[in-house]
Amino acid sequence: MRKFIFIVAAVLTALCAQAITNEELVEIQKTKKYTELWGQRATLFNTLGCDSTSIVMLGNSLTHGDEWHELFNDHRILNRGINGDVIQGIADRLDAVVDGHPAKIFLLSGTNDVSHNLSADSIAEAAGKLIDLIRERTPQTKLYVQSIFPINNVDYKRYKAMFGKDQVIRDINVRLKEICKEKGVTFIDVYPHLADENGNLRKDITNDGLHLLGQGYLIWRDVLDPYIKE
Amino acid sequence: MRKFIFIVAAVLTALCAQAITNEELVEIQKTKKYTELWGQRATLFNTLGCDSTSIVMLGNSLTHGDEWHELFNDHRILNRGINGDVIQGIADRLDAVVDGHPAKIFLLSGTNDVSHNLSADSIAEAAGKLIDLIRERTPQTKLYVQSIFPINNVDYKRYKAMFGKDQVIRDINVRLKEICKEKGVTFIDVYPHLADENGNLRKDITNDGLHLLGQGYLIWRDVLDPYIKE
Repeated sequence: MRKFIFIVAAVLTALCAQAITNEELVEIQKTKKYTELWGQRATLFNTLGCDSTSIVMLGNSLTHGDEWHELFNDHRILNRGINGDVIQGIADRLDAVVDGHPAKIFLLSGTNDVSHNLSADSIAEAAGKLIDLIRERTPQTKLYVQSIFPINNVDYKRYKAMFGKDQVIRDINVRLKEICKEKGVTFIDVYPHLADENGNLRKDITNDGLHLLGQGYLIWRDVLDPYIKE
Repeated sequence: MRKFIFIVAAVLTALCAQAITNEELVEIQKTKKYTELWGQRATLFNTLGCDSTSIVMLGNSLTHGDEWHELFNDHRILNRGINGDVIQGIADRLDAVVDGHPAKIFLLSGTNDVSHNLSADSIAEAAGKLIDLIRERTPQTKLYVQSIFPINNVDYKRYKAMFGKDQVIRDINVRLKEICKEKGVTFIDVYPHLADENGNLRKDITNDGLHLLGQGYLIWRDVLDPYIKE
């Protein structure tokens, strides 16, 4: 009898945890005033899904801009980046990632939250909550958290919302590292590999002070390579 | 002696046909006032390259938005789309595609040229020149040209530059089909699969009247599937 009740409870739980629909994702996009691109990509990701062999690159434009499976010559690697996405936006489309219980998730988020004038503490706290959510929803997935990338407002003047935000990014990264240590999550500090001696995004690997050119993606690849392969 | 001269000539030709550099691509981007994203993606594509097994999806935001290797579960399929790209922009970054002499190229371009107020004839003519260029540079590649997708300005009012352009798109598609027939290139008419009975992009597969939601990509996939597999 006990076993029967357990099975019924398990079935009910599974039914309640029914996957989100594309229509619901578009509704979230409209309600929260996310970009149309968010709705397009979130529904695509929901349509494609992922599975326990997948390695998911989860993040914003930096992740979106790459062709990951080519960069690593590994078809298991999936691009789950959306230009302009923020930490809450990633949380709002998490079902399509965590329901597949991928082998690994590489998270990179926070840059757009910085451009929205939030404090380092509040952004680090939001990132910590996202980390908790991912681990709760898919404990079997190995989670890697990447530091926020440096920016360059000296050689490039493209993103006014990022002016004077260099220290905010560095403060978040210090907190992110501590949070990852507390939670037992692997922290990958990509920042120093992309920064020049003054802490600016190296001007030879960007054309706008925020995003990477092809040669920048090669550096990022080399940093992630041991974690992809381990 | 004749053989020697032949070898020297071949080596000189190879040296002259040296691949474009990422620096040159960024210079083209600045000179032609393409978006920074164009520079980022064009240099990434140049860094990644492709080879004779590759199937290249070449185009603008519609191509860019997808994760092609996942949609077809085929790691040979490469995304060479750039948001906002125009026919000339594709021509300007063609080296990274044609130098690898891919097995197939699926071309989809012209929507952004339409938004720039060019005439149907001039856009079709530019597309014809791009088709010639691709065939000249890589005659061994099987080229597929896709019709421009329908738009929807009735249910969505997002893209003002596309207002009243429905007939221009239909006129281009008629010309494109003729051009492909003249040149012996396969024309894939995706348009009717995405349009409703009034010729508008089906409102249930878009959230902005121009781009596709996940369910729209499934329809597109089904149209391309026989050509991917043949």
